[in-house]
Amino acid sequence: MENIVPLKITVVRLGHRVDRDKRMTSHLGLTARAFGADRVILSGDKDDTPLETWRSVTSRFGGEFECMYEPKPMRWLRAFSKSGGKIVHLTMYGRSWNEMTPDLPSGGEIAIVVGGTKVPGELFGLADYNIAIGNQPHSEVAALAVFLNAYVGPKGPDHFPGGSVSVMPSADGKILVSKED
Amino acid sequence: MENIVPLKITVVRLGHRVDRDKRMTSHLGLTARAFGADRVILSGDKDDTPLETWRSVTSRFGGEFECMYEPKPMRWLRAFSKSGGKIVHLTMYGRSWNEMTPDLPSGGEIAIVVGGTKVPGELFGLADYNIAIGNQPHSEVAALAVFLNAYVGPKGPDHFPGGSVSVMPSADGKILVSKED
Repeated sequence: MENIVPLKITVVRLGHRVDRDKRMTSHLGLTARAFGADRVILSGDKDDTPLETWRSVTSRFGGEFECMYEPKPMRWLRAFSKSGGKIVHLTMYGRSWNEMTPDLPSGGEIAIVVGGTKVPGELFGLADYNIAIGNQPHSEVAALAVFLNAYVGPKGPDHFPGGSVSVMPSADGKILVSKED
Repeated sequence: MENIVPLKITVVRLGHRVDRDKRMTSHLGLTARAFGADRVILSGDKDDTPLETWRSVTSRFGGEFECMYEPKPMRWLRAFSKSGGKIVHLTMYGRSWNEMTPDLPSGGEIAIVVGGTKVPGELFGLADYNIAIGNQPHSEVAALAVFLNAYVGPKGPDHFPGGSVSVMPSADGKILVSKED
């Protein structure tokens, strides 16, 4: 299902730490891609590993997914906001996503910001929506997945054209199909 | 909302690696707790850190949540299955969760198994349900969150009684309430 008004979703990952967050950050970007975001922006420590993982998975499993590193994410977000983009900040301190999701724009540029433990206080004011996926501590990966699933819905194979491999759903085993052409 | 038939959900985390997975595994258990599981079982490398994190969060933020380490998870799962428990294996190779969720039991003992990269082949046969949250690579944390959210629904404050702190939802800041009693 396509949205009638085009929606472009960027996920912004704040505060990546090269020594502790490699897997979390990799999973975060893969979750963004699998649940329908168009782009992920890495910030915090400069680290090629997550970018390489995201590009490799996109190349193998198909679809369009852009990824980049941004050294000054707050400046980027201020400019994004000034140019009319809407900012969703996922935080356990925010308002309930069940109340907020119906109010979200169905088109235009959206940035979904997820942090690690320390997020600049400015972000709460800059964000158009501070949204909590439950007010319990859990995970930015969990929050992003549930939010995107509710916001743009599950993405099926049509969203991931091209690529060299695909998974065939199976009741009891692993079926990975290589595409030759 | 309570289920009329009592449902007890255990999340089993296979293949934890102490040197690489500390944060992923911590987040996985916190996600299990926040989205309504009753218990998490850690397997793979023995590691006190995630268990301490889960216990500390439960003590601070309330609710009932059990956690333990199990050195032989496949043996545990075989015994669980023999005693009538149902096993859900979350895997990108499984059948679509959108088709499967309505068929899942609404009561009784359920184990939700999530692996890392290498999962024993036996698990696909032992599981009553091999379920994919999309057939794209993403994250066991994302898969667990979306699955539990669809299966038992979002958990509100009533699910987390006791504890020493709670978050008050806010449109634009952090409000953490300490409970004195």
